[in-house]
Amino acid sequence: MKYPSDQAAAFDHLAALLQSHGELVDAELNRILPAADVPPAPIHEAMRYSIFSGGKRLRPALVLLGCEACGGSLQAALPAACAFEMIHTYSLIHDDLPAMDNDDFRRGRLTCHKAFNEAIAILAGDALLTHAFEVLANGLPNGSCGRLVAEIAAAAGTPGMIGGQIADICSEHMPPDSELVRFIHDRKTAALIRQAVRTGAIIARADSARVDAISSYGANIGLAFQIVDDILDVEGSIEQLGKKAGKDAESGKQTYPGVFGLEASRQKAAELVALAKRNLEPIGAGACDLCALADFVITRKK
Amino acid sequence: MKYPSDQAAAFDHLAALLQSHGELVDAELNRILPAADVPPAPIHEAMRYSIFSGGKRLRPALVLLGCEACGGSLQAALPAACAFEMIHTYSLIHDDLPAMDNDDFRRGRLTCHKAFNEAIAILAGDALLTHAFEVLANGLPNGSCGRLVAEIAAAAGTPGMIGGQIADICSEHMPPDSELVRFIHDRKTAALIRQAVRTGAIIARADSARVDAISSYGANIGLAFQIVDDILDVEGSIEQLGKKAGKDAESGKQTYPGVFGLEASRQKAAELVALAKRNLEPIGAGACDLCALADFVITRKK
Repeated sequence: MKYPSDQAAAFDHLAALLQSHGELVDAELNRILPAADVPPAPIHEAMRYSIFSGGKRLRPALVLLGCEACGGSLQAALPAACAFEMIHTYSLIHDDLPAMDNDDFRRGRLTCHKAFNEAIAILAGDALLTHAFEVLANGLPNGSCGRLVAEIAAAAGTPGMIGGQIADICSEHMPPDSELVRFIHDRKTAALIRQAVRTGAIIARADSARVDAISSYGANIGLAFQIVDDILDVEGSIEQLGKKAGKDAESGKQTYPGVFGLEASRQKAAELVALAKRNLEPIGAGACDLCALADFVITRKK
Repeated sequence: MKYPSDQAAAFDHLAALLQSHGELVDAELNRILPAADVPPAPIHEAMRYSIFSGGKRLRPALVLLGCEACGGSLQAALPAACAFEMIHTYSLIHDDLPAMDNDDFRRGRLTCHKAFNEAIAILAGDALLTHAFEVLANGLPNGSCGRLVAEIAAAAGTPGMIGGQIADICSEHMPPDSELVRFIHDRKTAALIRQAVRTGAIIARADSARVDAISSYGANIGLAFQIVDDILDVEGSIEQLGKKAGKDAESGKQTYPGVFGLEASRQKAAELVALAKRNLEPIGAGACDLCALADFVITRKK
């Protein structure tokens, strides 16, 4: 898949799109989350604090772009887009807890358990996950609810994201292992990213060949995204990242730079992005923005 | 609603039914949960440890009995029954965490974070909640998936169970308050119990009058159940309860005995059970077992 125009123009177009889609998602999240003063207020304040903390809105953008690439409408995909952001945010709140990664900062602000307390943070995570399924059930087109809720739960559960998180924790301070780091990254990060763009395609009623193509694209950019995250953790600063850098080495995490070195990791990420762009070929011209997003994933600095 | 025969015979019948329904639910839970050796193994071990720890299986029994009372089949309600037990168990795992109620024992065994560790317990709770929605999406009859997933998520979320948990935590050591304790108990315990029996009725395609009747029954026995829990925490022993007694007073919890005294609490529970039995009148003869279950709720000793 190539751009119709030059890469700079495609990036500008993507940046504007991510901005407008992000605003749409934020407005919808604001609408569907209980107001901060609805009793019991502390839980709703905490949910909103973490959701509206300047996230990149990558996963909702993927739902929306996946739907649009296959001819579906933004409106049809909007509830699912919000659900993915809620699932992602819940996973960050729980990941940051003292018993997990024990982080004080996220996106440049205090983490949820630091801004509130641990009990509220645990329950705010639980509540965002639970509310995501309510939003999906109310917002998915009739007929695809059962299939999509089941797929999304699997991608977020032990076959996917939670499986990756537990493997990540249980393999701390083990010798660098290429199979293990792939197992972790495919699940911890790529599973939900793949499912986000796949969900958009399914909402657009794409045929199975297109759904498969988009899913492969998602798996490849998802892995590339996490490799870049690993690289940024080595090279970045807290000012740039909005969270503490160098945490992976300190915690003895399995990472691509740890296993393969920085240069080979950069090359691996670039190969995955090239592969993801080839995956988009069956989609045709509608996939331009997804194509630009693949390149964006490896050029990001935070 | 009265029994066709005497109460002792109705109790014997209910006990046999709870036993056989419990075995059915356990066999299905065993089938649908990933095996303990599926990688990453620790999360699946922890999920199974907490699910198979001798729970009363009250919520799944309510799903099954609610469905049967309205003429539906056990098989149709079995996936939802398992989902309710997974949601209930996740809530217990998170409730027991050091940042929440900080309990070392549950159902006579070490709590999940004591048997494993805190990180695994947080993720095992997350995974059970997530898997519950996968099981619901795969197992609910076509056509009722959207409605039921949305209702169950609301009952488990901040309008229901999580809202009750947060209000419970935030009102510790506040002066006893009758409105507050009702707010907490209606949400923390009654919301999910009500939704369990209501879900059974909806799966059986009961008309809205019967669904409403069963829902009121569920709300009333749910509140009675929690009042009895409060009473047992004052009067019971760790041997009897399988968990530490006297915790509520120690933690400064809002409880019915704390607000109204023991005798008035017993009377309130009995009134709620009488009301619940009247709620069942539109259901007719099919509701005998639900009727016996209402009486069982206030005679239990653990």
